[in-house]
Amino acid sequence: MPTLDALWTRFDAAVKELAALEHIDAVAGWDQETYMPPKGAEARGEARAVLRGVAHEKLTRPELGEWIATLEASPELDSSRRAAVRAVKRDRDRELKLPARLVKELAQAQGRGVEAWKVARREDRFEHFRPALERLIALKREQADALGHAGERYDPLLDASEPGMTTARLQPVLERLRAGLVPLVEQLTASPPPAEDAFLRADAWDVDTQFDFSLELIRGLGFDLEAGRLDRSAHPFCSGLAPTDVRLTTRLFRDDGASAIFSALHEAGHGLYEQGLPASPAGTARYASMGLHESQSRLWENFVGRSQDYWVFWFPRLQARFPAALAGVDVDRWVGAINRVRRSLIRVEADEVTYNLHILVRFELELAIVRGELPAAELPGAWRDAYERVLGIRPPDDRDGVLQDIHWAWGEFGYFPTYSIGNMYAATLMAGAERALPTLWDDVARGELAPLRDWLRAHVHRHGRALDADTIVTNATGSGLTEVDLLAHLRRKFGAR
Amino acid sequence: MPTLDALWTRFDAAVKELAALEHIDAVAGWDQETYMPPKGAEARGEARAVLRGVAHEKLTRPELGEWIATLEASPELDSSRRAAVRAVKRDRDRELKLPARLVKELAQAQGRGVEAWKVARREDRFEHFRPALERLIALKREQADALGHAGERYDPLLDASEPGMTTARLQPVLERLRAGLVPLVEQLTASPPPAEDAFLRADAWDVDTQFDFSLELIRGLGFDLEAGRLDRSAHPFCSGLAPTDVRLTTRLFRDDGASAIFSALHEAGHGLYEQGLPASPAGTARYASMGLHESQSRLWENFVGRSQDYWVFWFPRLQARFPAALAGVDVDRWVGAINRVRRSLIRVEADEVTYNLHILVRFELELAIVRGELPAAELPGAWRDAYERVLGIRPPDDRDGVLQDIHWAWGEFGYFPTYSIGNMYAATLMAGAERALPTLWDDVARGELAPLRDWLRAHVHRHGRALDADTIVTNATGSGLTEVDLLAHLRRKFGAR
Repeated sequence: MPTLDALWTRFDAAVKELAALEHIDAVAGWDQETYMPPKGAEARGEARAVLRGVAHEKLTRPELGEWIATLEASPELDSSRRAAVRAVKRDRDRELKLPARLVKELAQAQGRGVEAWKVARREDRFEHFRPALERLIALKREQADALGHAGERYDPLLDASEPGMTTARLQPVLERLRAGLVPLVEQLTASPPPAEDAFLRADAWDVDTQFDFSLELIRGLGFDLEAGRLDRSAHPFCSGLAPTDVRLTTRLFRDDGASAIFSALHEAGHGLYEQGLPASPAGTARYASMGLHESQSRLWENFVGRSQDYWVFWFPRLQARFPAALAGVDVDRWVGAINRVRRSLIRVEADEVTYNLHILVRFELELAIVRGELPAAELPGAWRDAYERVLGIRPPDDRDGVLQDIHWAWGEFGYFPTYSIGNMYAATLMAGAERALPTLWDDVARGELAPLRDWLRAHVHRHGRALDADTIVTNATGSGLTEVDLLAHLRRKFGAR
Repeated sequence: MPTLDALWTRFDAAVKELAALEHIDAVAGWDQETYMPPKGAEARGEARAVLRGVAHEKLTRPELGEWIATLEASPELDSSRRAAVRAVKRDRDRELKLPARLVKELAQAQGRGVEAWKVARREDRFEHFRPALERLIALKREQADALGHAGERYDPLLDASEPGMTTARLQPVLERLRAGLVPLVEQLTASPPPAEDAFLRADAWDVDTQFDFSLELIRGLGFDLEAGRLDRSAHPFCSGLAPTDVRLTTRLFRDDGASAIFSALHEAGHGLYEQGLPASPAGTARYASMGLHESQSRLWENFVGRSQDYWVFWFPRLQARFPAALAGVDVDRWVGAINRVRRSLIRVEADEVTYNLHILVRFELELAIVRGELPAAELPGAWRDAYERVLGIRPPDDRDGVLQDIHWAWGEFGYFPTYSIGNMYAATLMAGAERALPTLWDDVARGELAPLRDWLRAHVHRHGRALDADTIVTNATGSGLTEVDLLAHLRRKFGAR
């Protein structure tokens, strides 16, 4: 029998090997979205599939299972190592539960789903997407059964994005969130609209200047540009190849003065989390959940980035970059413009208040889909009805309705709620930070963001996935997933108008 | 027993798997030289080492050896598949012959070698580099012995870059090349220097404009920018991730009007070869040798790119981009300036005529080193003496002498001669193309480069490594490695002055 230390060394080396393969795959993925020439797509797809095959072999090999079992059964294993073993076991168990045939069929169905969705969306023709979607739904239900559940098929899909979260726990929270938001939206959209914001959409925002200002903003957040980059891509994203190599992307429009700023702050929020992850043990050197990840992007984008105090410092700098576009605009008008609340059709363009209602529609529908209560054919109608009921606005077509998001075409069911979980965690963490840092907002108004960043680093980032997201938030703030702080924030920020 | 076809399918799938891992590693390598943030280096190094370990496992696994043996022994295997089996067997045999310990020690010694070389070069202090170099020499000699040879230790090292080439075959060719070049250089440098070229080094060459013009030039060569890219890096290179994804890099200086142009043409020459490689069988879908690769870059850089005819078409376009820098310069003066011949110290800055003398010095010295006839301690003196003897110029220091190239610090012995092999193959291929395409130079003068490119594609690129380089050149032109065509070209081009 090897000693516990020798066994740990083997286990840790195997996990580092897996992390290295993920790192390399992430490089290939980043390149694919940024610089890869169009004809390179096929070779890249094949190469990444091979790499994932290798990772699958490595993760499922029997020795690793034996090491995990022995380590788990060793009472003298310290808590940090125990957490790493638990996290890797979770990955491995999921991988083992999914038959190779299902994995392959899902990959194919995702490919076809995305292709069909693109056409369907362009032509506003849901029926073109329906067969691929039906296939995806069937496979995801099969996947849920393979992963196992106690009657709620949605649970294992939700758990894939949000480890430890259950429908039973989540649904009442989201229901209370809805109950709080609907009257708030009613109140905010009943009164006359706030400051005029047409200047944001003037054709006056030089994209290179926007890019440079975005760099200035994310540097201001403390994102380390020696350990990361900002590039352009069709859809903004953050990819953490390693805490020392975090890639952000953004997109820039000449006729939109705000989109790039909030993309950059959002992705840099994700990026700060990735840069703050622990270097070891390799098994826990990863984010705890998608919801917690999203909390970090939303915190910087919305709670900080859309606050009056933030722009006290940054607005003069923005105005110096765009004197023409911002002629006659002052900080109050700017802050008003970036905080307009309105009932709208498109999730990714929604404001801080209505955003969660967009998510609630998707959660309600995908829960019904996965449960088998809503056939794909009835989805477009159900979508329109839900928007009318929840958001008070009825989509005139499917393009800006049920076809607006790529997620379901990717086979992502159980992912949407992590956006709202992220918003709620962000609010709770922000409330915790305000209690811990009495001068937080004075600091923000002086451009001094290090105290908040360091607090998040110490209370959130550095844990990696040694603890689950809810435990991390609870340890940091005293409460786990709750709608209370988010509703309080939104009422305080918007209710007084 | 599986059928031959079934066996081939397994073999081919295994080779595609290896190619996929190489593709992914090449993405990571390209990123490392172009966009990777500095702090990402360590994680990247570790991840790529893991990936190479996986590739090693896959290449050396016993089943692959069995498939190769059975396929090789099957008389009914067609020639294209037979070539693929032979090529993969070659890779595999090399890999099996090198003990894991030696591979690891070499990797470490290369890392240390490069670090020590950087310091030594900066401080002009060869002694700082000597211990690392001695270690590398010892390991390379051990590697040569492990690979096996019939008394000439240099052979297996040369063969690594130039499959099938031997010292016995190469040395007399290089000796005759030297014998032809020395009097030519004598003659060319005795007469008064040609057209004044100070305008090339004026601080007048906007780098973004140079980059755009480089793109125009390589598009003109027929390099497919939908299946490749041009980026910037510290040292220009070409990396073929796949024929559909070929990455070129260049570097740009405001005070150099020629360097970027010839870098771009050089790398695009490499790139055309990579884009022209066969897609299958996977075993032969790779370049035949470094010398043949270099022949493609040199052909476009020197034989085409430094010709008068090429600039008949392109000079007006260049002048339109740089009206100030090229005020008063005509095409003759431009062509004279980019073809100045002079005795100089630095290989990478050498002209077409003296370049090979730089290589001959290195070949002579590294052959003696590998044979054990020249200790590292005596290398700086031997270098100075050889430069004086061969190039007629004595380096005043080691920085611009023996420390100028990174190759030996990388443990690359047996690589330098492939540059001269490339020049000779380029001359022979160009002579063959001229015979096959009577209007070649008229076409070039009209900017029409497709006939030459298509001829190279048909006679060189499409073979991949189904044939060895010398056979490819012989089949295309009637002769293999020879100094005759290169000397004839240089005498014709420069001798008449």
